[in-house]
Amino acid sequence: MDDKNISQAVIGRLPRYLRYLGELKDSNVERVSSQELSELMNVTASQIRQDFNNFGGFGQQGYGYKVNFLYDEIAKILGINKTHHLIIVGAGNLGQALANYMNFERRGFHFTGIFDSNEALTGKKIRDMYVQPMSNLENFVKENAIDIAVLTIPKTSAVKVAEQLVSYGVKAFWNFAHVDLNVPDDIVVENVHLSDSLMKLSYNITRKEQENE
Amino acid sequence: MDDKNISQAVIGRLPRYLRYLGELKDSNVERVSSQELSELMNVTASQIRQDFNNFGGFGQQGYGYKVNFLYDEIAKILGINKTHHLIIVGAGNLGQALANYMNFERRGFHFTGIFDSNEALTGKKIRDMYVQPMSNLENFVKENAIDIAVLTIPKTSAVKVAEQLVSYGVKAFWNFAHVDLNVPDDIVVENVHLSDSLMKLSYNITRKEQENE
Repeated sequence: MDDKNISQAVIGRLPRYLRYLGELKDSNVERVSSQELSELMNVTASQIRQDFNNFGGFGQQGYGYKVNFLYDEIAKILGINKTHHLIIVGAGNLGQALANYMNFERRGFHFTGIFDSNEALTGKKIRDMYVQPMSNLENFVKENAIDIAVLTIPKTSAVKVAEQLVSYGVKAFWNFAHVDLNVPDDIVVENVHLSDSLMKLSYNITRKEQENE
Repeated sequence: MDDKNISQAVIGRLPRYLRYLGELKDSNVERVSSQELSELMNVTASQIRQDFNNFGGFGQQGYGYKVNFLYDEIAKILGINKTHHLIIVGAGNLGQALANYMNFERRGFHFTGIFDSNEALTGKKIRDMYVQPMSNLENFVKENAIDIAVLTIPKTSAVKVAEQLVSYGVKAFWNFAHVDLNVPDDIVVENVHLSDSLMKLSYNITRKEQENE
């Protein structure tokens, strides 16, 4: 499958398709038409068909899509049928929340360790693992072939820690630190800048208020 | 200022400008050219000028931009010079993390209450406030003119709770529940679907792996 030129906008919509298809699967629905999916998801049927055509179309439109097949195909495109090894660096509030809250395993991520530079946290039990000191980081990453690091550390240390992790072999970052990482182009970075999201919310509220004045 | 037709993509970039300008401000830098900003932020100077032209350009390019002025103007556009009243609904791991971790006040959000349906959490102290039961929600929202709710509750209850909050007067949601809310068009929703972000990360890792095969 040649999906080299699929836009990030299309990719960004795939998880939402997967979510709705997962719910249909859970309700034992076997087939769904683009029209039904359209009503369910509140996007046009034409958008759905266009999105799916990027990946070859996923089967006969006249009869609708087979839910299980469509789910598996999208899961495959998203790579969540593969297993990656992930650590969380930063065991503060946010790191602990992600450790407890995210269902990493369901998305093919094997969560194997959590680290913090604050020695007061060393040995604290979070979910089913113990917080390790940063001095363990290099050996742990190398021995466990860790490919993904979730960064929930302050922005002052994030850039340096990311560089170190790359040198240990980490290939991707889920970055919650409020800073742009400085890593080579072949390293994948997905930023979650919560403050930026909050500011977008603020902007859109202001817009609505101006419209209603 | 007529910013009715500014794209969400441009809006989405404003918080990042604000972040870099805030750092320049903190370092007492008075002026910055689009070229300098371009190198700092790793975007083209032409992109910066295009983005700023959406808002009238923010001053003379030849002499560079005045950092303080530019910061204040972007802050105004983002509406973070206004105060909004915000509550968190859902005092689980994620709700507690956001309560402890986000600097709401710095962005013009006055964080005034946290709620949970789990009675075991009622009265628990988080940051400087106590978790309240959901039975307090209606009165609290109405009496304190709450306009924003952060939803950190399970997706099974999020849609219904959002509808209730709208009927009490809430105008905007920062939604972490992994579901699409069903609210009127004049209500602002900013979704943070962490699982979707994780799947985008997974997709981009798979893509890189295929490129390197």
